[in-house]
Amino acid sequence: MSKTSFGIIGGGALGGLYGGLLAKAGFEVHFLLRSDFEHVRKHGLKIETPAGDFELTEVHAHASPDTMPPCDVTVVALKTTQNGELTRLLPQPTSKGGLVLVLQNGLDVELDSAAVVGPDRVLGGCCFLCSNKIGPGHIRHLDHGRIVLGEYQPHNDGVSNRAASLRDDLIIAGIDTTVDPDLATIRWQKLMWNIPFNGLSVVLDASTQELMANVDSLVLAKTLIEEVHRAANACGAVIDERLIQRTLDVTKEMVPYDSSMRIDYLNRRPMEVEAIFGNPIRRAEAFGCKMPHVEMLYRQLAFLNRHNSGAA
Amino acid sequence: MSKTSFGIIGGGALGGLYGGLLAKAGFEVHFLLRSDFEHVRKHGLKIETPAGDFELTEVHAHASPDTMPPCDVTVVALKTTQNGELTRLLPQPTSKGGLVLVLQNGLDVELDSAAVVGPDRVLGGCCFLCSNKIGPGHIRHLDHGRIVLGEYQPHNDGVSNRAASLRDDLIIAGIDTTVDPDLATIRWQKLMWNIPFNGLSVVLDASTQELMANVDSLVLAKTLIEEVHRAANACGAVIDERLIQRTLDVTKEMVPYDSSMRIDYLNRRPMEVEAIFGNPIRRAEAFGCKMPHVEMLYRQLAFLNRHNSGAA
Repeated sequence: MSKTSFGIIGGGALGGLYGGLLAKAGFEVHFLLRSDFEHVRKHGLKIETPAGDFELTEVHAHASPDTMPPCDVTVVALKTTQNGELTRLLPQPTSKGGLVLVLQNGLDVELDSAAVVGPDRVLGGCCFLCSNKIGPGHIRHLDHGRIVLGEYQPHNDGVSNRAASLRDDLIIAGIDTTVDPDLATIRWQKLMWNIPFNGLSVVLDASTQELMANVDSLVLAKTLIEEVHRAANACGAVIDERLIQRTLDVTKEMVPYDSSMRIDYLNRRPMEVEAIFGNPIRRAEAFGCKMPHVEMLYRQLAFLNRHNSGAA
Repeated sequence: MSKTSFGIIGGGALGGLYGGLLAKAGFEVHFLLRSDFEHVRKHGLKIETPAGDFELTEVHAHASPDTMPPCDVTVVALKTTQNGELTRLLPQPTSKGGLVLVLQNGLDVELDSAAVVGPDRVLGGCCFLCSNKIGPGHIRHLDHGRIVLGEYQPHNDGVSNRAASLRDDLIIAGIDTTVDPDLATIRWQKLMWNIPFNGLSVVLDASTQELMANVDSLVLAKTLIEEVHRAANACGAVIDERLIQRTLDVTKEMVPYDSSMRIDYLNRRPMEVEAIFGNPIRRAEAFGCKMPHVEMLYRQLAFLNRHNSGAA
């Protein structure tokens, strides 16, 4: 059996790192890039990781989907704010019936990919990752890195063969990966971190370390986590309430880290407010559960999002 | 009867304006100043108002309470964050049994003055005022200016003679003043503006105009105003619920204005978080009423307050 080929849509902190690790492990990897295209084509990728740094000098870089070959797995590693582009970007690399792995933050983020290639070809993954792009083609992976993936449409028989096979490929590339039969629950678990720490880090202009060190922001973070936990369970996810405290503990021990949303904000890029806040709020509301603190943070971020791009 | 003499503690946007108007009207006015003392002693006060600008070249400026004569009315026009100073500042100007008029923002702000001179000598006042100090001894009054004053300890017979007399003095000086037998209600009414617009203008780094022009901040402002209104009524204030919409309408028609809290924040001065947020939250809680959105804003401001001074 030939090795799986990958198409990586987006060469940011996430796509650059995972695509780079797959390429380093000998998989055929095609990157669809925008601003970094020229740089990566000429100089390749430079990746710093806690396990050691490496460079890839020969990279299959593409400026357009038209030059991409059909890939076995297309990884959606764009920001969700760019999901409008997927109708243009996804068809070519997935043209021979390949799978799509959506590694995006938030809830219900697979919907846009599913609309293009059909829901039965979509898997989703949650990345527990501290990684930043610090320059063109230059990724700095700071901490963590685990992917939990699963079928977008849950299979009755638990873990599907193709999900297990994809996990094995990622593990070969040195990426800590597990498969979970209940992706929605995993996404809610991740939101228990993303909602408080992405949101507060922007509104309070602070690193996770600063948020954890102050009693007021700590109380806020805990209140938000509890609210997300309640909403998750209302929506059918079964999450042990000990994860509330564990989320705080993990954050306390994390290296000082600027959340992706804060980096977007500071760089005057649109923040993923709908994927991380709007979708969970709407989903919870549909299940009769209000999240008043999350909604207040959502509206603050929505204000800042518009204000920030308006001022740009 | 000789004219009332005034001691003004603090020569900022509020004390400078009102003291200046009283002096211009011929009242004897003594200013206790700190950073502006030298400037005001030499150059006097410069005041811009919508009704016309004026300068006072001869001003009784004091650098210490020790040089102040006993005054009939001592006006506390400091920030509440400096209330710890009142034990040192108040006794001398009020030594002959004069009254104290506390023109500070927030709730229960008369407590510190009452502890120094006795609650029976204290009146409070709410100022509905857009005024900024734009330089040493230089006040720019932008809009509004009304004072609603009342006894700190409500009199059974409604409006006291001394409150009415003080009102008349202020009116002579061109200051739109009324007396209200229920000062606490007036303070809650003012909090219906101060809590949303001071708070959001800091956290979202925006003017009142920007807050009113964006749908998300407008929803937030309304939610906060409704919550304060509910708490006020729970604490015994009787406020018509039409004031909720009127507060928004007034703000919409206000000149673009940086709230006092935002100006403090931008200048890295401590914000009046306890007077404007902490005290109302605690008072409402004592009456069995929670304000979750106000409390979230309070904790965000408390974080920024510490963070801001820490970075100073």
